[in-house]
Amino acid sequence: MPDRINVGIIGFGVVGGGTYETLTRNAERIAARVGAEVRVARVADVDWAREREITCPPELRTTDAAAMVVDPEIHIVVETIGGIDPARELISQAIQAGKSVVTSNKELIAKHGHELLALAEEKGVDVQFEGSVGGVIPVIRSLKESLEADRITEVMGIVNGTTNYILTRMTTEGLDFAQALTAAQELGYAEADPTNDVEGIDAKYKIAILAAIAFGLHVPLEEIYTEGITRVTAQDIAYAKKMGYAIKLLAIARQGEGNCIEARVHPVMLRKTHPLANVNGPFNAIFVRGDGCDEVMLYGRGAGARPTGVAVAGDVLDCARNLHKGLPGRVLCTCHDQARVLPMADITTKSYVRMRVKDRPGVLGSIATIFGTEGVSIASVHQEDTDGELAEIVWVTHRTPEASLRSALGAIGNLAIVDGIPGMLRVED
Amino acid sequence: MPDRINVGIIGFGVVGGGTYETLTRNAERIAARVGAEVRVARVADVDWAREREITCPPELRTTDAAAMVVDPEIHIVVETIGGIDPARELISQAIQAGKSVVTSNKELIAKHGHELLALAEEKGVDVQFEGSVGGVIPVIRSLKESLEADRITEVMGIVNGTTNYILTRMTTEGLDFAQALTAAQELGYAEADPTNDVEGIDAKYKIAILAAIAFGLHVPLEEIYTEGITRVTAQDIAYAKKMGYAIKLLAIARQGEGNCIEARVHPVMLRKTHPLANVNGPFNAIFVRGDGCDEVMLYGRGAGARPTGVAVAGDVLDCARNLHKGLPGRVLCTCHDQARVLPMADITTKSYVRMRVKDRPGVLGSIATIFGTEGVSIASVHQEDTDGELAEIVWVTHRTPEASLRSALGAIGNLAIVDGIPGMLRVED
Repeated sequence: MPDRINVGIIGFGVVGGGTYETLTRNAERIAARVGAEVRVARVADVDWAREREITCPPELRTTDAAAMVVDPEIHIVVETIGGIDPARELISQAIQAGKSVVTSNKELIAKHGHELLALAEEKGVDVQFEGSVGGVIPVIRSLKESLEADRITEVMGIVNGTTNYILTRMTTEGLDFAQALTAAQELGYAEADPTNDVEGIDAKYKIAILAAIAFGLHVPLEEIYTEGITRVTAQDIAYAKKMGYAIKLLAIARQGEGNCIEARVHPVMLRKTHPLANVNGPFNAIFVRGDGCDEVMLYGRGAGARPTGVAVAGDVLDCARNLHKGLPGRVLCTCHDQARVLPMADITTKSYVRMRVKDRPGVLGSIATIFGTEGVSIASVHQEDTDGELAEIVWVTHRTPEASLRSALGAIGNLAIVDGIPGMLRVED
Repeated sequence: MPDRINVGIIGFGVVGGGTYETLTRNAERIAARVGAEVRVARVADVDWAREREITCPPELRTTDAAAMVVDPEIHIVVETIGGIDPARELISQAIQAGKSVVTSNKELIAKHGHELLALAEEKGVDVQFEGSVGGVIPVIRSLKESLEADRITEVMGIVNGTTNYILTRMTTEGLDFAQALTAAQELGYAEADPTNDVEGIDAKYKIAILAAIAFGLHVPLEEIYTEGITRVTAQDIAYAKKMGYAIKLLAIARQGEGNCIEARVHPVMLRKTHPLANVNGPFNAIFVRGDGCDEVMLYGRGAGARPTGVAVAGDVLDCARNLHKGLPGRVLCTCHDQARVLPMADITTKSYVRMRVKDRPGVLGSIATIFGTEGVSIASVHQEDTDGELAEIVWVTHRTPEASLRSALGAIGNLAIVDGIPGMLRVED
């Protein structure tokens, strides 16, 4: 039961720096709360020459993370480097060495969380990862503990700040995707290579983690349908606004029968009255529905040094308190079974479809007939002349299996009178 | 380390019933998560003849709560009766008898929480009270644990569903207070005697609890300025809408220097872009600001059997897990020092003032001169003719100490040209 808890941080980037800064700035108050001094004793990074906004004293610096994770002087290992290698091995060694671990590594937890948590449970140590989803938003602890007594049926979130920032700029200023992406990059909200964010990969990791905790099942990543925002256009956003919707990149997980769940990431036309529809800019929010809780939403900054640093440091305090009191770790979210993710073709949603057609008599009838043949029922249709030659038709369907819609759109796309189907978005009311 | 955790519930009203129902409905999943069966073994209520929506088997029923809290067969006592007597004594005895306690009693925690938590710490038992503020919203655990590493500077909440429902109806339908109150009573959102809700007393208890956890200080209730919504009129709401604001009953706590804090409950004109401004109907939300977390908001149902039952049952699981593993209680929020609450006169806010004046030349000048003399700087002024005789003037001030504004309004109210000052609201941007 040490009176001084030594923390070793792997990776001194945005999150590592934010964690160091949070623990250092609030050291006195933290010591009073935990009953022991919690201090950053070592920071490992491969490159100490790089310029940083947050710095740490030279005597804490090391380049040897592998030595740090087995050092008997270090009680808690904080991993913030991201990616699988070498994070997986380093964390695994830290757990084996009996250390508590805190990580903000969503890819690692999404892919290997179930193994690492099982190992942690076996070794009786803490492995915490609040910072891996939604930055400072306390969603993991809330699902794991506060809402634990409820049966959660749905988790739906804006979990990627970059794409939400881009969509917000597109919505408020009428920018197209490329312009909004450039603006986001200039402000540091998007990386030089934005693929992970704009293609929905980052959101996929996060919904896998949330679904695993909410439903107690390991979710195979390759089964999560993932579509980014690169095909969302200024026109679709304008139509959405007109119809009382916002376009958001949502990560969605829903409980089905037995071990069957829905898990998917794609842009959604979301009714403006939905609590998530007003979450703008770089903010994140996670909306939870359960049998008993009805609707709960948690909102905050999903990224950034200080907000994510607060989440990681909160986990560090939890570990530190257990260590100081000589208590075992509390994992609370090991998943033994694997989820079966419903194929996208079997998902039933309302949909928005925007198509460009030749401006001729009978066109609407031909298309409507195909929708009817495929069992796609239409909730609303709106036609606008765009120029002399072409007209734009916007359809909103009733709830339809994705397979039927795809089949109808395939047939419609083959019609000579159809110039193209540039817009297709699922609708959530 | 019992394999079957016996829960005794005191009070079988809305919250007690919801807790019973949650624990019973999800018993199997809960047992799997905790590693032990968690079952409601006894329910104490003074009146078993009363009709209820949720019922429990006759063999669980007792009228002797005092015997239940010391019964060695009972491991966790859940108190849902509310009020000070006999709840305080029953909980105190349960803690003395080494039992874990879960309560949803905001008045008790606001008034005596610091004593009960100190006793719990001494006895090494859990005392949990997530259900006392914001129903199912996981705000207490989030402040106590997830955001623990941050310095929280502000907690601001819509923590009373009755008043939020009334204000929402007034806003969407132009109803006056009395009509909206009647509607709320008919739908069961307001009690026959609505005083505790509409006068802000319920919200005062809740902000005292939130401030205590956020700032680590016991907050004397009598120092919390408390003003309800009975004087909010349809006219004020119409003006607010026109100016881009919503009127909400907010409970506000802000960190000051040392042990000095702001803590107050009153209606506020809140800028529509604020995350709390779109929280409508019976929903609650708590907005937290901190040095590191920036803005966090938690949203959900603040009342009702099932939502509050989920929060209380979540606390029960936490206690049950500790008991099953033979671990001591984790109180984490004892307050040893007392807050000094800034007197309302010293609070500085923007304000909205609506007054009715004789429609004559020079009136605006006379009033503006008094504002100027008292150091109240005006941000905007808007005059409207109401009838031939009287005009209505709406002022919005810059940030001003409440004392200066009160002094100015006193002098202005004494002018012969002033017919009355029916509207005064603080403004939050």
